[in-house]
Amino acid sequence: MSPEGSVSSSGLNRLSLNTATCKWLSLADCVEVAARAGLGAVGPWRDRVHEVGVERAAAMIRAAGLRVSTLCRGGFLTASDGPARQAALDDNHRAIDEAATLGTHELVMVVGGLPAAFARLGLRMTDADAHDKDIAAARNRVAEGIAELVPYARERSVRLVLEPMHPMFAADRGVLQTLRQSLDLAAPFPADVVGVVADTYHVWWDPDCRGQIERAGREGRLASYQVCDWILPLAPEPLNSRGLMGDGFIDFPTITSWVRDAGYTGDVEVEIFNEDLWALPGDEIVGRIAERYRALIAPYLG
Amino acid sequence: MSPEGSVSSSGLNRLSLNTATCKWLSLADCVEVAARAGLGAVGPWRDRVHEVGVERAAAMIRAAGLRVSTLCRGGFLTASDGPARQAALDDNHRAIDEAATLGTHELVMVVGGLPAAFARLGLRMTDADAHDKDIAAARNRVAEGIAELVPYARERSVRLVLEPMHPMFAADRGVLQTLRQSLDLAAPFPADVVGVVADTYHVWWDPDCRGQIERAGREGRLASYQVCDWILPLAPEPLNSRGLMGDGFIDFPTITSWVRDAGYTGDVEVEIFNEDLWALPGDEIVGRIAERYRALIAPYLG
Repeated sequence: MSPEGSVSSSGLNRLSLNTATCKWLSLADCVEVAARAGLGAVGPWRDRVHEVGVERAAAMIRAAGLRVSTLCRGGFLTASDGPARQAALDDNHRAIDEAATLGTHELVMVVGGLPAAFARLGLRMTDADAHDKDIAAARNRVAEGIAELVPYARERSVRLVLEPMHPMFAADRGVLQTLRQSLDLAAPFPADVVGVVADTYHVWWDPDCRGQIERAGREGRLASYQVCDWILPLAPEPLNSRGLMGDGFIDFPTITSWVRDAGYTGDVEVEIFNEDLWALPGDEIVGRIAERYRALIAPYLG
Repeated sequence: MSPEGSVSSSGLNRLSLNTATCKWLSLADCVEVAARAGLGAVGPWRDRVHEVGVERAAAMIRAAGLRVSTLCRGGFLTASDGPARQAALDDNHRAIDEAATLGTHELVMVVGGLPAAFARLGLRMTDADAHDKDIAAARNRVAEGIAELVPYARERSVRLVLEPMHPMFAADRGVLQTLRQSLDLAAPFPADVVGVVADTYHVWWDPDCRGQIERAGREGRLASYQVCDWILPLAPEPLNSRGLMGDGFIDFPTITSWVRDAGYTGDVEVEIFNEDLWALPGDEIVGRIAERYRALIAPYLG
C-alpha cells in the first residue's frame, strides 16, 4: 500500500475495482467511477490498458490518486510445442513490463489449461495437442515456465502471482487448482518474485483453505485478495457465474478473517464477471460493491 | 466380486451399468440390456429400486446373473435442525437395509450441501438455514452423522462409501471435495464399514489424486471406481454435463492404472448423466459404453 493507504473518510481505501467488473466501461470510466466512490485502487486487465497504451494508462490512474492493485494477467504456459511456448513467454515478458510501467508489484498469472482444450479458448492447437490430456505434464510445464520468467520479473520488481483456479476451469483455463499446489510451485523462488492470490471464487470450497492462507501469509506470498461470490444456478457461460458478495454461498466474514490473520494488509480487489451486473451504469456497479464490501468484508479486515 | 468375477468371454465382466446412465429405462430394462451385453453388474439408484420394491429388485438382478456393484445413494447429512437431521438418519437406515437386501456391500453416500442451498434441491429450509454458509460446520455434521450410522451399517455388513464431489457441487450437493478429506473422515472407523469412491468426474483435477488413490488402496477403503468424462461446454444443467469416456478431458488410462496399482479388483461402474446419451435406446447406450471401456479402461485394469 502507498503511504495514503490508511482508512479514507469513506472507508473504501483498501477496496479495488477490477476492470472486468465493469466490462463495458473504458479504463478512463473505470478509473473515474472508482475515484468518485472513494476507492483506493483499480486492477486493470491488459486489454483495457492496451486500448489507451500503457504509459497513458499509468498516468491516468496516477492522476486520479489510485493505486494499481494487480495487473491481470500473464500466464498460459502449458503449450508443449516450441513456437507456442516461446510466444507465451514473450507475451509474459510484455506483461511484466506493463506491470512495471503501471507501478504495480503484482502480475496475476492464469496458468493455462490442457492442450486438448486449447481450441476452446481460441488458442492454436496442434494435432498432438488435441490428444494431450496429461494434466501432470501440463503442471510441470507451468513450473518450468515460471522458472524461466523469474529472472526477468525480478529485475523489474514484478511478482508473478499464481492464481489457483476453481476445478471447474482445470481443463481449459488453469491447471493450478489449490493454494497448496500453487505455494508448492512457488517454493523454490523468492517470496517477492513468485506469490499467490486468494480469490474467494476459486478457493472457498477447499478443505485446506484456511491452512494454506495462513501458510501464504507466513511465507510472505499472499499477494492479493480477490472477492466475488459463488452463485447458483451457474450462468450459461460458467465463467460469468461470479456473483456480488452476499448473493451466493461464500462465507466472506470467515475467509476475510483468515486473510487478516495471515497478515495481509493490501487491497481487496473485486472481480465479478456477471452479465446482470455489467448491464448497470458504472456508478451503480461500484455503489453495490461498496455496500457489500462495507457489510461483509471491511469489518473483518482488521 | 462374486466367484464368477473372472473375465467373461466378452471382457466386460468388471463393467457395471449405473442405472442413472439409462435414465429413461426401468430397472428391468437396465438389467436386461446389461446382461445381454455381457456386463457383470449393475449399480442401481434407489428410485429405480423403489419402483419395483427391494426384494423384487434383488431377485430380478440375481436372476439375470448380475452383481450389484453399489447402491446409490445415502447421505444428505448436513441439516442442523433436529427433525431434518433425524429424517436424514432414518432414510439412511432404510438405505442400509436396502443395500443389504440387494446383496451389495457398498452404499454410496452423497453427503449434502450447505443449509443455505437446501431449497435448491427441494429440501426443507428453515429461516436459520437460509443464512448458514458455514462449510466447516456442515462438514463436521457429516462426520457426526457417519459416526451415528456406523453401528447400524456394520451390523448389516454394509459399507458407507463417501463420495468426494467436484467442487462445482460443494454448495448444493456435497461438502466433501477430495479423497484426502474423505479418507480423513473415514479414518476413525473400520475400513469395511466406511470407504470412499473414486469417481473420475469428481477427482480427476485433484493434484493429490494419485497419492490419495494409493492411500485408499493401502487403507482398504477403495470401495468403488466410477467413470465418466469431464466435457465442455457444461450442459445448461451442469449435473448433466457428464460425458462418455473419451468425449472429454480426463486421462482414463492414467487414472485407471492408479486404481489398478492401488489393488482395486472390483467393478468399474459407469455413471453418466447426459441428455444426449439418455435419448438413445438402452442397447446402444450400453454398446457405446462397452466400446469406450474396452479402449480406454479395460487395458489398464490389469
